[in-house]
Amino acid sequence: MSIDRAACEALDRADPLAALRARFDLPEGVIYLDGNSLGALPRAVRDRLARVVDREWGRDLIKSWNTAGWIDLPGRVGDKIGRVVGAGPGTVLAADSTSVNLFKLAGAALRANAPRSVILAEAGDFPTDAYVMEGLADLAGAELRLVERDAIADALTEEVAVVLLTHVHYKSGEVHDMAALSARARAVGAFSLWDLSHSAGVLDVRLDADGADLAAGCGYKYLNGGPGAPAWLYVRRELQDRIRSPLSGWLGHAAPFAFEQGYRPAEGIGRGLCGTPTILSLSALDEALELFEGVAMSAVQAKARSLTGLFARLVGERLSGFGLGRHGPADTARAGGQVSLTHPDGYAIVQALIAEGVIGDFRAPDVLRFGFAPLYVRHVDVFDAVAVLERVLAEERWREPRFAARAAVT
Amino acid sequence: MSIDRAACEALDRADPLAALRARFDLPEGVIYLDGNSLGALPRAVRDRLARVVDREWGRDLIKSWNTAGWIDLPGRVGDKIGRVVGAGPGTVLAADSTSVNLFKLAGAALRANAPRSVILAEAGDFPTDAYVMEGLADLAGAELRLVERDAIADALTEEVAVVLLTHVHYKSGEVHDMAALSARARAVGAFSLWDLSHSAGVLDVRLDADGADLAAGCGYKYLNGGPGAPAWLYVRRELQDRIRSPLSGWLGHAAPFAFEQGYRPAEGIGRGLCGTPTILSLSALDEALELFEGVAMSAVQAKARSLTGLFARLVGERLSGFGLGRHGPADTARAGGQVSLTHPDGYAIVQALIAEGVIGDFRAPDVLRFGFAPLYVRHVDVFDAVAVLERVLAEERWREPRFAARAAVT
Repeated sequence: MSIDRAACEALDRADPLAALRARFDLPEGVIYLDGNSLGALPRAVRDRLARVVDREWGRDLIKSWNTAGWIDLPGRVGDKIGRVVGAGPGTVLAADSTSVNLFKLAGAALRANAPRSVILAEAGDFPTDAYVMEGLADLAGAELRLVERDAIADALTEEVAVVLLTHVHYKSGEVHDMAALSARARAVGAFSLWDLSHSAGVLDVRLDADGADLAAGCGYKYLNGGPGAPAWLYVRRELQDRIRSPLSGWLGHAAPFAFEQGYRPAEGIGRGLCGTPTILSLSALDEALELFEGVAMSAVQAKARSLTGLFARLVGERLSGFGLGRHGPADTARAGGQVSLTHPDGYAIVQALIAEGVIGDFRAPDVLRFGFAPLYVRHVDVFDAVAVLERVLAEERWREPRFAARAAVT
Repeated sequence: MSIDRAACEALDRADPLAALRARFDLPEGVIYLDGNSLGALPRAVRDRLARVVDREWGRDLIKSWNTAGWIDLPGRVGDKIGRVVGAGPGTVLAADSTSVNLFKLAGAALRANAPRSVILAEAGDFPTDAYVMEGLADLAGAELRLVERDAIADALTEEVAVVLLTHVHYKSGEVHDMAALSARARAVGAFSLWDLSHSAGVLDVRLDADGADLAAGCGYKYLNGGPGAPAWLYVRRELQDRIRSPLSGWLGHAAPFAFEQGYRPAEGIGRGLCGTPTILSLSALDEALELFEGVAMSAVQAKARSLTGLFARLVGERLSGFGLGRHGPADTARAGGQVSLTHPDGYAIVQALIAEGVIGDFRAPDVLRFGFAPLYVRHVDVFDAVAVLERVLAEERWREPRFAARAAVT
């Protein structure tokens, strides 16, 4: 028997995270299923930014580095992110972009693991990961080996200095076994480096407990830090004194305001900093992370799985016969917070959905990607989104010519 | 005859930039002489940020990458900075931090200039410059040579791949001859790389005309982009297809949303991008740069020199006998927008001045640094600041114990 809207409403009434939705500013008439690309706006960010601009920057000016604690903000925000990804205080730092942080960590791992010089990564992962490793390998005289997903474990040999893996695949949503692969890497003396861009804030990640060595991730997806929010990096506590970032900028120095000749890395995670942090963007992220205070990540993951499972079930029940396929694991319990469908006209279908107020995104060549951010997406949203998708497909609305025009950013 | 306050008022009445001051939100009772560390708040930033948060992020969400032009913002902001530093459209990009950009550019220069492997830089420059080059040299197997200021020209040999020079010295304010040193570098086949953190927005910099190859600088000093504002980088147009950043992140790819395997750099300056830009901070910088629209940088430099010359003259006339020295060129026309004094108790004196509402900063071991941002500092501010400094010194107010305690950020 098919699930109806009333059953979805009942699920929402029983949702322990239901109250969080009111703390976001969501546009009217929109079902937002793209929080895995850009998280929605937490209401408190507006006032926080006004305070940072008016009081901290405008009135207190340069003093705010001390009085408003700007100088410690990367570490404070890092500790908040740490609570979301199962990492203890002093192991996470908010800084720079995911790309830059992956470079720092893989570069540091190459250095710590010399003379090994192989960087292992998965073919078909989010492109920036391989692009950044390509640039690093070229500069450092290292070798980048890209292997298919099911060949990773076997490719982890004693030649490998560092293996870069994306925990939740950006397109398929498939999840790697962090504990098993981190252990396998350790067994051959390689550092494990995890990209958690599509995991942080949606899955119950346990970096410390699962034995990950290094990790980085994005601040603007499920962490809701705003467009291009600062990213973050993690270094397992026991490794911190062996890890030296090749991006050895002044704020990672042991005494940045002593203006010494010669780089001397700070103790602890602070050595992961490079240049001056972007305080406005970082303050927005700091405020957004308040939404996770007191929230159990097990509950967040459970709700994500409930939403993705519901979506997959409804699509299966109601949308057969429209030529849709599935990309990624059939069992949504093996995926992150997203479900990916396929269709040869996926791009136009996504545009038609957006015109109807259901916002997902498209990933080449044929993937329709729907993300379910557990802090603000409801079960009724899932139900309503599938109803709109059904209408768009049944009435072939996506065939309108206006839906074929490609935008710069898809 | 000593200049009096009325004469300073007359200078302000004749100042062609005088109207710009009203476009800043300056705190009451403060003379702000630290715009070379953190620029003051342009009033228009507040509304711009509110619009970006409420409308672009909150209402339009992911669509704003296209509809609000977020994706092009690094280039649009770059072009605005280009007008301030004498660089044509398509040669400047706003992104990342100064430290990260110096790494990108020096790394790209090493690659383009192989098999040369010497990075030449000036000993005693702002520490991050040498720190970053140290990390780069270590990773790339290059050699970092630090030489004294007057030995740079002779050290420019055919071994040198790239020479990193700070145009205006952070502590002394001394200015290098950009045209002469860039030409000298070119003559030996080395790339010139200029750090313009203390030049952009205060001097009449002419990157294109003076033959600089590469440059980077900060967005939060005289450009007034806010705390930790995104930095920028410049690549001379003729060199752009030879320059490949080692930080080859996805947004520097020729087709970032095609999700191709293999890095293929974008045409032109766009290849200098790495990760996703911090849109909130970048929007603040974009708005702040409006203050330079229609302003001749020759007039900005002339006012900077008028302010620094006045300060030096007043200090010379009124503050002899207090044990103050000068750090940097005696002739302020050979310096940037700052004047640096010395005193064995410089730290406490700067703190006592701050308590009196005159904000400068301290640089170890004994430098009192005063910056004169021409867009909002007046000649009467200089006069009044010297009067306060005279009182602090004459009454030895800086001896109060509370002024000895060091803060984290100086």
